[in-house]
Amino acid sequence: MNNHLNIQLLLTGDELMSGDILDSNSAMVAQQLETLGLYLRKKITVGDDLSLLVAQLDQLSRESDILIVNGGLGPTQDDLTATALAQLTGLPLSEHPDALAHLQRWCQRRGHSLNRANLKQALLPQGCDIIDNERGSAVGIRLHHQQCDILCTPGVPSELHAMLEASILPFIEGQSPAINPQLLQRFHVFGLGESNTQQWLNDTYPEWPAAVNVGFRAGAPTLEVKLRSSEQNEALHRQCVEQFRALAGDYIAAEGNQTQAMALVQQLQQHGRKVTTAESCTGGLIASMLTSVSGASSVFEAGYVTYANHIKQQLLGVDPQLLETQGAVSEPVVRQMALGALAASGADYAVAVSGIAGPEGGSPEKPVGTVWIAWGSHDQLHSCCLYYPYSRHLFQTLVAGAALDLIRRFDRGISATPRYLQERCLPTSNSDSTQLHRR
Amino acid sequence: MNNHLNIQLLLTGDELMSGDILDSNSAMVAQQLETLGLYLRKKITVGDDLSLLVAQLDQLSRESDILIVNGGLGPTQDDLTATALAQLTGLPLSEHPDALAHLQRWCQRRGHSLNRANLKQALLPQGCDIIDNERGSAVGIRLHHQQCDILCTPGVPSELHAMLEASILPFIEGQSPAINPQLLQRFHVFGLGESNTQQWLNDTYPEWPAAVNVGFRAGAPTLEVKLRSSEQNEALHRQCVEQFRALAGDYIAAEGNQTQAMALVQQLQQHGRKVTTAESCTGGLIASMLTSVSGASSVFEAGYVTYANHIKQQLLGVDPQLLETQGAVSEPVVRQMALGALAASGADYAVAVSGIAGPEGGSPEKPVGTVWIAWGSHDQLHSCCLYYPYSRHLFQTLVAGAALDLIRRFDRGISATPRYLQERCLPTSNSDSTQLHRR
Repeated sequence: MNNHLNIQLLLTGDELMSGDILDSNSAMVAQQLETLGLYLRKKITVGDDLSLLVAQLDQLSRESDILIVNGGLGPTQDDLTATALAQLTGLPLSEHPDALAHLQRWCQRRGHSLNRANLKQALLPQGCDIIDNERGSAVGIRLHHQQCDILCTPGVPSELHAMLEASILPFIEGQSPAINPQLLQRFHVFGLGESNTQQWLNDTYPEWPAAVNVGFRAGAPTLEVKLRSSEQNEALHRQCVEQFRALAGDYIAAEGNQTQAMALVQQLQQHGRKVTTAESCTGGLIASMLTSVSGASSVFEAGYVTYANHIKQQLLGVDPQLLETQGAVSEPVVRQMALGALAASGADYAVAVSGIAGPEGGSPEKPVGTVWIAWGSHDQLHSCCLYYPYSRHLFQTLVAGAALDLIRRFDRGISATPRYLQERCLPTSNSDSTQLHRR
Repeated sequence: MNNHLNIQLLLTGDELMSGDILDSNSAMVAQQLETLGLYLRKKITVGDDLSLLVAQLDQLSRESDILIVNGGLGPTQDDLTATALAQLTGLPLSEHPDALAHLQRWCQRRGHSLNRANLKQALLPQGCDIIDNERGSAVGIRLHHQQCDILCTPGVPSELHAMLEASILPFIEGQSPAINPQLLQRFHVFGLGESNTQQWLNDTYPEWPAAVNVGFRAGAPTLEVKLRSSEQNEALHRQCVEQFRALAGDYIAAEGNQTQAMALVQQLQQHGRKVTTAESCTGGLIASMLTSVSGASSVFEAGYVTYANHIKQQLLGVDPQLLETQGAVSEPVVRQMALGALAASGADYAVAVSGIAGPEGGSPEKPVGTVWIAWGSHDQLHSCCLYYPYSRHLFQTLVAGAALDLIRRFDRGISATPRYLQERCLPTSNSDSTQLHRR
């Protein structure tokens, strides 16, 4: 990778040093720089310690062409970035008219008046430039010092993201002697692991070109696979994208910036289908994932969170005898939940889940991590038992991911059984549910 | 804060620089050190670049008493830590008998023989000590250089965790001239912003002692406030904790490691109360937050995700005429949703929300960000209109947070109206809902 610019990142905040939060901002910066074919040479994290901050600013601004500083722009006394810059450069802190105007607009829009703490955010090193913040009260700061452009950005991820796109990247692009734009294609696959995907790729395409970099990022519930090439290798890049698309095929739940839920909502919109949810162990998470998508109302009208057995009876018409004899985590119950939700909502498709999220409630026959899922339509309902023996949070996330994936596959009429159903599926007693059929 | 040892952390790995994975190891190290009252002064992350690694090792080992190095101990050619140490110290790489013995045992237990890649892991700077790795093939390395103890640890989190507990912490404890355990108190407040809280604290306690550090972390939906002192200031720490508790009072939604949802579930369990949810704009998120908590089934049995109007009618008995004349985002509708959910579920409390999450669907009278919330019991139902003009994701998160908070307050019998209801509340037409009463 070509990189003429020395770009470094200085992160500040006690919460980053104490382990209270994970740093996701530096990953965001790195991913955005990557779209320009640029990368971070080094990143340094320090707490809210003025002298240490000044020392690092001094050292890094000597080393770098561009120094991105993240955090410390807030209104509280532990936000020290402006003060540190003033000490570094010898420029006094003074009220910046543009920053003040930004703060006034910001408070006005929210119907409250400026307080003293807010006013601190307008005190910036004299003569610096501000960087607009569309999303928050803190403006960014730009200063040229020791041949280095210092760009100070807010610690709130959504504010950082907007500022990177609107201001920082265009600025860096303008500074760079030889930007080497990258071609990037992201795939979000459900049900394949990182090492299996890598192995599958190696086995299928032993001659995969080195110019097309394959990166993995294990998310939950999907795995992101990223293909990256320099723009000059466009034909090769396209060919590899097609090869990966052919290989991963049915497992691709979304591409690009879409999430799994966004892609499913869009697919159902295109097909004019509606889906309903009947959730026990996921407790509303599937519905919540669907409705996190703007426009979900055209494909999702009703969701049933039936956490207690008597609610499964009352709301979805599950037979109390079945609950008694088979237990709530069983195939007949989950099938009745799905059918009940279909009847009550009038939706085309339903997905129903009932399982043991843990850490309590497991038994030798039904250990923590066991879940029954039913999905499909009134005429063609499938069901399966999966086993995800993980933390409560990861269990709920993976079950919700599987629920969305199974609806996607059903709506697409994909007849092949995905590997994860084979690998994690316990055999079912009901013959019509042992195979997936084309609709 | 007192800290006699200068401890720094050097992380290495291209995957940490590219943003492909988030660094959770440094948080683990920081949390473990905190139990000894120690903290990391600085952390530096670099990619798999030998000269950069050697330069950082050189600089950090001059500055620090203890330098923890994480990553780069694996068998592949991009694992450079041992090579970098050899360059730094001038000690040649040679086969370390203890490391070799570890590798042989490791492979033997797994029934395979040593390969060349494994053997690389036994090539260490001559004369170094090894640190046992219970969980993996790579042993750790310990070297004394320039008055600094360099401790090299594996990048795999589970291996790092075991090594920290078994070897690194005991070693550091033995080195420390004066371990200074810390007192820590975390509060999670809902409905107060960072700057307002800071201002309030400054105004109320202008003489707040410097020995009690106050840190803020803006989460969504709660704000975390952390008070930290050295153990020798225990009396002062306790006094400040009580002062903050008195100040923040009703706004404290949880303390310590509890989340807002965990604290609410526990409170309802203690009071023997059940809650139900009727959600439109949050689409299952409130239910999902409640059921993320293990044991939620004792306080939550049913949740109704009524995204479409006809489902509000059918499932919760909302009057279709009201939906027609007032719209779904209105006080009478949200009150009927709550009453309908109470009647259907048999719960003691309900919370119902209906709003415009956006970005589509706003109007001049009901802009994006408007939400009606009803909460309480059958006999005492409150309602209010709030305005959260943010992104869809943040809107949904804050509305769900407010829903949990209002139920907490109602169950506690807190009569005071929280600031956020005053600041963000539009006046209501219904006289019985303009004030919060003690139950």
